[in-house]
Amino acid sequence: MEHTQVIDPKERLQFLLEHNASEELASYLDELSSQEVVYAMSHLSRTDQSKLIAMLSPEDAADVFEEIPESQAADLLLDMESSDAAAILQEMESDDQADVLMEIESEDAEEILAQLSLEDAADVRKRTSYEWDTAGGLMITEYLSFHADESVEQVIHYFRTHGDEFEDLHIKYVYVVSRTGSLEGIVQMQSLLMAAPHATLSSIALKNILTCYEHTSLDELGDFFDTYDFYGVPVISEDGQMLGIVLRKNVLEAYAEQVSIEHMESQGIVGGEELRTMPVLLRSRRRLSWLVVNILLNILAASVIAFHQDTLSSVIALAVFLPIISDMSGCSGFQAVAVTMRELSLGTVRTSELLRVWLKEVSVGLINGLVLGALIGVAAWLWKGNVYLGFVVGGALAINTVLAVSLGGIIPLILKRFGADPALASGPILTTVTDMMGFFLALTFASIMLNTTGAIH
Amino acid sequence: MEHTQVIDPKERLQFLLEHNASEELASYLDELSSQEVVYAMSHLSRTDQSKLIAMLSPEDAADVFEEIPESQAADLLLDMESSDAAAILQEMESDDQADVLMEIESEDAEEILAQLSLEDAADVRKRTSYEWDTAGGLMITEYLSFHADESVEQVIHYFRTHGDEFEDLHIKYVYVVSRTGSLEGIVQMQSLLMAAPHATLSSIALKNILTCYEHTSLDELGDFFDTYDFYGVPVISEDGQMLGIVLRKNVLEAYAEQVSIEHMESQGIVGGEELRTMPVLLRSRRRLSWLVVNILLNILAASVIAFHQDTLSSVIALAVFLPIISDMSGCSGFQAVAVTMRELSLGTVRTSELLRVWLKEVSVGLINGLVLGALIGVAAWLWKGNVYLGFVVGGALAINTVLAVSLGGIIPLILKRFGADPALASGPILTTVTDMMGFFLALTFASIMLNTTGAIH
Repeated sequence: MEHTQVIDPKERLQFLLEHNASEELASYLDELSSQEVVYAMSHLSRTDQSKLIAMLSPEDAADVFEEIPESQAADLLLDMESSDAAAILQEMESDDQADVLMEIESEDAEEILAQLSLEDAADVRKRTSYEWDTAGGLMITEYLSFHADESVEQVIHYFRTHGDEFEDLHIKYVYVVSRTGSLEGIVQMQSLLMAAPHATLSSIALKNILTCYEHTSLDELGDFFDTYDFYGVPVISEDGQMLGIVLRKNVLEAYAEQVSIEHMESQGIVGGEELRTMPVLLRSRRRLSWLVVNILLNILAASVIAFHQDTLSSVIALAVFLPIISDMSGCSGFQAVAVTMRELSLGTVRTSELLRVWLKEVSVGLINGLVLGALIGVAAWLWKGNVYLGFVVGGALAINTVLAVSLGGIIPLILKRFGADPALASGPILTTVTDMMGFFLALTFASIMLNTTGAIH
Repeated sequence: MEHTQVIDPKERLQFLLEHNASEELASYLDELSSQEVVYAMSHLSRTDQSKLIAMLSPEDAADVFEEIPESQAADLLLDMESSDAAAILQEMESDDQADVLMEIESEDAEEILAQLSLEDAADVRKRTSYEWDTAGGLMITEYLSFHADESVEQVIHYFRTHGDEFEDLHIKYVYVVSRTGSLEGIVQMQSLLMAAPHATLSSIALKNILTCYEHTSLDELGDFFDTYDFYGVPVISEDGQMLGIVLRKNVLEAYAEQVSIEHMESQGIVGGEELRTMPVLLRSRRRLSWLVVNILLNILAASVIAFHQDTLSSVIALAVFLPIISDMSGCSGFQAVAVTMRELSLGTVRTSELLRVWLKEVSVGLINGLVLGALIGVAAWLWKGNVYLGFVVGGALAINTVLAVSLGGIIPLILKRFGADPALASGPILTTVTDMMGFFLALTFASIMLNTTGAIH
């Protein structure tokens, strides 16, 4: 576990590249940890990345492709001859193949697939038709199956004679299928050890096993593995044919990926992934697609101020507090959004529970609104020596905090219920509503005070 | 995988509770998926939760405790007699035990531990001394080990005769230890199948195996499992004694948890976990601890406006745009923060690469700044028919966007380098700096225009 790398991996790679030392390169990459490969690759120019891949055998190149971000691997595939691309693709694991191909325009992908055998190409094409967050997209198609009437002895004999082929594969189960390919049961490795040698697989297999379908969602799979301590679950078609296995580790990895994508989206990175190695214009365009919506919503919210410009000129001090009200309401609301997103993923809340969540948030909003309103109210009062200004600013923030917190709690639920993406849309909707309300409250309170007391200056 | 639950689990639980049907309760809970248990439990009152746990056997109660959030489990342990708590604790898996106990004040935890045997209590105490995100905190202590001089036949015999004891355990390896307890190697289940019956474990064991120490971090473990397709890695003490195993699945789960906690923290949920079942005052206090810092920083930023109040009264239209500049700069900066946080966790960036990240962000910031500045500038010009106002507002947003984006990219790196938590602190620092700069730029530009052209009204 200790990698005492004196040399920076990216410099070492660069050196080996410049010296065309392809054998040393392959063995050096093999030594590096996964993170070091990712780090070093992302620091090479795209030309150098291509040169490096070209120097490796398809097997070694496939190993690198399985480590680096998919968009990077896809770019590199496009840079090479389609026959070379196909050779590397063929060495990759079935789930990684599909993930990389999905990053490529379908025309370019077809050119690569044309280099594969018809059967292999059809397999990969089928794989790419699944969503990444379904059993079909997550499954691997590498597994061991035996016929139901084979004996324990035959299987053990098979292992003894073919053992070297699975050295890299960590086999946990063998799958027992009928002559027509439909899944009959599974046998754990330990059961093979414990069974009488002449028993048939059928007699020792666990029957009525739990399976899933190609379109079973990541959420359902996550729930499944939470409930059952299994290593994997077989994926079957509607007619009972075995298609592959979804491994727990792939579900857990996909789940971490989903959380991370949601986090990126909530911060306005559309598409959920951006690497600094991507072209500047692409990065800029994807960020702008979200920012432009945001600025239009901002202008809409600020128009509330424009309508009350007269009030504002009479109470110019208010201009200092409007950005504070806007920012603080946003912060309070985002906290509630984050808790709801968390509870949705934990499963402690359902999209139908609007009222329950709203009530839970109103109580927190009331306390926090009073505290924050008091703080800002006192600040305004002390600064201008005008207690009315304190009431206007503090009152607006207090009420708006209650509103922001309770809306923040339920907006993700409403969006999810209507099939929209709560990670991406909750923020802009929340801040627009709370900005408009916050400005409206502060300016209306100010104008009431002006009219009744004339005491704000 | 299909749970056709017609009745809402929380209502069914409530019904069984009211009728004191403890046997049906246990079997019903067994039928529920993990998410349904979490959902139903979080919808019972704390009294009902306690009542439910009291109706279950310690084994069944332990199963529930392993599903629900740790803070909830800890509360329930505190509600019961310490002997009952200890009985349940003893049935939980070693890693979950420690996680729950760490949520309890040490005095209360000691009261429960006093009910365990001295040895068990010492074990648990040792476990709780590890950080949750280290090998010590993540490892399980349930594993199978045999002495190096035992034969394959003996081990197979042991499995055949003791098989039922491990029915729930999915054994992937057995660990081979010397007479003094130091780890000599591991044997895969498939190797037991392939080996000659009289071979000693020592002769078929994989030696020189990779191990980790108690204090190996989650990041290192994640990197390890990225690189090696192992099911688990043994944890050894400095003197080579085997302490436990860290499983890949627990590392992946902890990683997803870490991403999720970082996301919550970046939205101002201090401590990283909040459930709506927690007491209102606790939730409110934890959210406020972050909001109060934020409002003080907001007041600091807004003081820039206060200093330029004269300019503002002459150009009251500017008050409409100050909140927009503040909000949009924040949005642009947060995008860059999110990309850096993502790249840190992928490993494509290191904390030393300030200049590289800064340059990469400046280029995106320039493009986005120009686009956003032009948009807001045109909006201002059209609204007031004053092209100077457009230049003031658009220029301020354009420059401030470059600043926000490039700062947003490097702030997490700087914070991490100095050992601070980038998830929690990046946002407030970023918005304070960009607000101050944004207000300063807009008001200064306005005052320059006023002085030179007098053309803004």
